[in-house]
This record gives sequence, C-alpha cells and structure tokens, in this order.
Amino acid sequence: MAQIDVHRKPRGLRDRIAFAFVKFLRFFADLFFRKRYGHRAVVLETVAAVPGMVAGLLQHLRSIRRMRDDQGWVKELLDEAENERMHLMTFIQVAQPSLLERGLIMIAQAIFYNFYFFLYLFAPKTAHRVVAYFEEEAVTSYTNYLREIDEGRLENVPAPQIAIDYWDLPANARLREVVLAVREDEAGHRDRNHYFADALIAGDEPKAEATDAPLPVYALRKT
Amino acid sequence: MAQIDVHRKPRGLRDRIAFAFVKFLRFFADLFFRKRYGHRAVVLETVAAVPGMVAGLLQHLRSIRRMRDDQGWVKELLDEAENERMHLMTFIQVAQPSLLERGLIMIAQAIFYNFYFFLYLFAPKTAHRVVAYFEEEAVTSYTNYLREIDEGRLENVPAPQIAIDYWDLPANARLREVVLAVREDEAGHRDRNHYFADALIAGDEPKAEATDAPLPVYALRKT
Repeated sequence: MAQIDVHRKPRGLRDRIAFAFVKFLRFFADLFFRKRYGHRAVVLETVAAVPGMVAGLLQHLRSIRRMRDDQGWVKELLDEAENERMHLMTFIQVAQPSLLERGLIMIAQAIFYNFYFFLYLFAPKTAHRVVAYFEEEAVTSYTNYLREIDEGRLENVPAPQIAIDYWDLPANARLREVVLAVREDEAGHRDRNHYFADALIAGDEPKAEATDAPLPVYALRKT
Repeated sequence: MAQIDVHRKPRGLRDRIAFAFVKFLRFFADLFFRKRYGHRAVVLETVAAVPGMVAGLLQHLRSIRRMRDDQGWVKELLDEAENERMHLMTFIQVAQPSLLERGLIMIAQAIFYNFYFFLYLFAPKTAHRVVAYFEEEAVTSYTNYLREIDEGRLENVPAPQIAIDYWDLPANARLREVVLAVREDEAGHRDRNHYFADALIAGDEPKAEATDAPLPVYALRKT
C-alpha cells in the first residue's frame, strides 16, 4: 500500500521545470473549479488518462524497433491509463459535467495529447516527472475532497455501481470509500512515475512492478 | 478456435482499396524475403504490432473525450498489439535480423506508424479492414512457413523458451508448434478486425469478445 502524503522535493533543473509546470496548471484548476471537487475530478481524470497511454505507445514502439523485451513495463503504463479512465467513468456518475466542461475536455485533450506526445518523445524523463508531480497534486485534491465530505459540505452519496465492481467495494459503499480508493491509486501512480523517471535518469530500463508484490488496487477489476 | 483458411471477398470501394493496398505491400514483401520465412516474420511482426496500439490509443482518447465506457474494446485492441509484440520476441530467437533488416525496421516503423495513425484518425473502418486483410496474408505466409518445415527445407528447431512460456507449450516443443500457435493468433485477429470494421460500418460500437468465450491463445501468457 502506497504512502498517501508524500512529496518529492524537486532536484535539478529537469525536476524544477516539471514541478513549476504542474503548479502553474494547478493554479488555473483551483481558479476554475474552486470547491467543486466532483467536477474537478471529471475534467482532470480526462487529462490524467493520457500520459500512460502515450508512454505505453512510445515504449511499445521502442521495444519493437529495438527488438528488445520491455519486461512488462508497457503493460503497466497502459494499465495506468485504463485505471485513470475508470476513475473518469466513476466520477461522471457522481458529477455530471456541464456543457462548458464538456467543451473544455475536448480542447484540453487536443492540446494536452499533442503536448505530452512530443514531451515524451523528446524528454521521457521529464515527462514521467511531470506525471509524478501531477499525481502529488491529485492526492492533495482528493484529500481536500474527503474533508469536504467529512465536514458535511458535500453529500456522501452511495458509490456508483461501476466503482463497487471495479474496486470490489461492499454493496453499501459510499462516495467516501470511492475517493479513498482513487486516492490510493493516484499515490501508486505517483510513486511509479517518480521511479520511472529515476530509472531512466540512471540509464536503466524500468521494470514492471514485481509480480509477487501485492496487486495494485486497480488490478482487482473484475473482467 | 478460429478457422484458419478464410478469405473475405472485398465488397464495395472501401474494401477494394484496403485489399489492393495489402496486396501491393505483399508483392514487395514476397520480392524481398522470398522463402526466408523466419526473417519475414521478424520484419513483418514489427509492423503488425502497430495497428492495435494505434487503434487502442485513439479509441481510448475517444472514450475519455466522450466520457463513455468502451465496453472492454480498448483493452482487446491493446492486447492484440501485445500479442504481435510477443510474436516478434519469439521470432528474433529463431531468425536474427540482418543489419539491413534492422535498418528497414526503423524506416518501416517511422512511415507505417504515421500512415496508420492518420488512416485510423480519418477512416477507422478502412483501417480495421486493412488489418484484417493483412492478417489473411499473414495466415497464408505462416502456412507456407509450415510447408517449408514439413518438407524439410527449413529445420524444425526447438521452440524458444519465450514461446514455450507464452503459449504454454510442452517443454520439448519445436518451431512447428510455435508457427501453428502464431498462425492461430493471426486468424483470430483477422476475424476480430473484420468484425470491428463491420460493426463500425453498421454504426455500432464494437464490443470486446464475450468474457465467457474461451480465452484467446495469447491470453494464456504467464505473468
């Protein structure tokens, strides 16, 4: 189980650029969403589902181009993208996005996909660091979301069925348990992406999580 | 278990374009590789691993943009790409690519990735049809490969360990059994891609293979 509240101090120029970029985007997200955490989750999860897919694509192409086994890394990256997509599918049951938000999602994807594709193509280490810092912010936002629920400002509605199935929650689970599960996932992605950046910086090929490690929460999805 | 020798007659302009394009490429592959089936498999599997990844990427982005569940389709597309990558990892144990072939692989990927990305972006129905016809040709080539082995012109070497693990073959398996397993996979991808094209033409959202169906061979990979 990943530690929840962990922050990695930026070290060196690459980290500082990644960190500043993430904080810059957070400023606008805070401005736009304020305390509408459900809506925030919907819009930001549409962005969060992009990096794992782009990284999986580019590492897959690299693996076949060089004809070297990827040691399971590609699958882990794609699983990250699928996990973020499941967060999205969960939160649209909780907060229906407005028409403005739907438009925003289209534009954000068109910009962010292309931006991240070229960032990853030319600077994969920075790209993984950016995701890791994104996830640090996501953990913070979900902690704030929990506080709003715990202090009664947001209703602790029943968990959507899709979330109960995906995380294997009890049938009477509520929103609080969903946010806890999502936050745990994000903390895991944070640690893995910091590790991916570190491994690439050290000149190593990152390895997929050891298969004898406990399964990540999102691997429990019933198929 | 997919039928092995099935050919779908092209119907309509879209099919005819896809079919002609595939036959055009086959002409050059035949010219270049002649009867060097191991080398042919290595080079062509580096190309075959591209479409599933591109389709998975674009359908994933579409699913999150529209905030609609993909019903497992994205995962099936990505699994196709992973399966093709495993074919590649298998055949490089059988036929070491020459320097010329390695260069060819780099160039082919750069061209084919970009070509297929834009084909899928603007004409996904044609894109799936192209893959289906590719796979028809792949089945034919693997049948030819088997004949060369059976008639003693190619040595029936022991199966590489990676293939034994992936397809769960007996420890004393030989190349013949590997080619049979790969051909079976390709026949499956052929049928699925014809179905994906048909479903999109009919205006339906394609569905992933029913989970109560027997697992495709490539799902048996030990992790």
